Amino acid sequence: MSGTSSNLINKAVEQLSRFPGIGQKSALRMALFLLKRPEGDTLELNNALQKMRSQIKFCNQCYNLSDSELCNVCISPSKDSSMVCIVKDFQDVIAIENTGQYHGLFHVLGGVISPVDGVGPSDIKIPELFNRIKLGEIKEAVIALSSTLEGDTTEYYIAKKLRELGVQVSTLSKGISVGGELEFADEITLARSIKNRVTIDD
Amino acid sequence: MSGTSSNLINKAVEQLSRFPGIGQKSALRMALFLLKRPEGDTLELNNALQKMRSQIKFCNQCYNLSDSELCNVCISPSKDSSMVCIVKDFQDVIAIENTGQYHGLFHVLGGVISPVDGVGPSDIKIPELFNRIKLGEIKEAVIALSSTLEGDTTEYYIAKKLRELGVQVSTLSKGISVGGELEFADEITLARSIKNRVTIDD
Repeated sequence: MSGTSSNLINKAVEQLSRFPGIGQKSALRMALFLLKRPEGDTLELNNALQKMRSQIKFCNQCYNLSDSELCNVCISPSKDSSMVCIVKDFQDVIAIENTGQYHGLFHVLGGVISPVDGVGPSDIKIPELFNRIKLGEIKEAVIALSSTLEGDTTEYYIAKKLRELGVQVSTLSKGISVGGELEFADEITLARSIKNRVTIDD
Repeated sequence: MSGTSSNLINKAVEQLSRFPGIGQKSALRMALFLLKRPEGDTLELNNALQKMRSQIKFCNQCYNLSDSELCNVCISPSKDSSMVCIVKDFQDVIAIENTGQYHGLFHVLGGVISPVDGVGPSDIKIPELFNRIKLGEIKEAVIALSSTLEGDTTEYYIAKKLRELGVQVSTLSKGISVGGELEFADEITLARSIKNRVTIDD
């Protein structure tokens, strides 16, 4: 697409199409939407984005994205502060919170150990995790990292140390997707889900 | 989705999900993308949107969206100023320009005649069209409106008057979609495409 006859629109489309998953056509639809709405709507949008981008912080305890020194998860009285779920990224916190199945705190590593990329344990929030554990309140840790070479390496490294510190450690179960067709599952996942089969109680 | 633990992010997501075709999940992905990029990127985006929204004008001649008094189509020396294509909306200008098959000027009505909604000829840019025709430069008009009751009514009204003013009038051909399966075309469209069948020359 060569763009529209308006440079003002073209520049807005160029900016909007930088978003992941937003192509030229979607970006144009978004720009035209703003043009059809009152100018105040564009101001409101801009204010929300600008405010988010300039005011967001990292939680001092778990390194989750936060509006203040401690994030809303860390300060929530309904969370079980004896449990910590160790994740790579703040997106993972959102995904796990949205399941409604986990009621403890988090620790966001901000990456995984990757010797190839020169990322060692102290380049991510692993020392901070160990210091946090040493405070003694955390009794149980769930490691929720992607099942990749780097994820598994990081999990192995963390699990070993946490057990030494007297913490009970678990990891996410691996297996076939709920609602997924068995025939489309890869062999390694399928093998793992057979090995880790779960007894059906009556 | 109940949102994230950050109100700053939630407000940005709320604003972004107002765009057509952007759901909560996409909006969250967009917000997180901004958080991962330098703050300058958010500023650039906001500037482009704000500038577009506050500076955009309507072309004095064709009522297309424009950066100045006359739009880039109207001032282009490569356009055939004896032809005008009459469309409902500025999106239609973009769609027709992108085909690369039309090289004349446009006239954007800003709506169609709709007695049910109380929209008469003088509520849209029809008087302006006739005044423009009376200047004498335009010899041919292509009416490019959607094939709906309102579109057809508007076409009938405009075509009659333009012919009286000595202008050659045509409309977009109706028929089956290029690349579309014949069996999925509706009966009326299919009937029209049989009636308006085109001779194949060798």
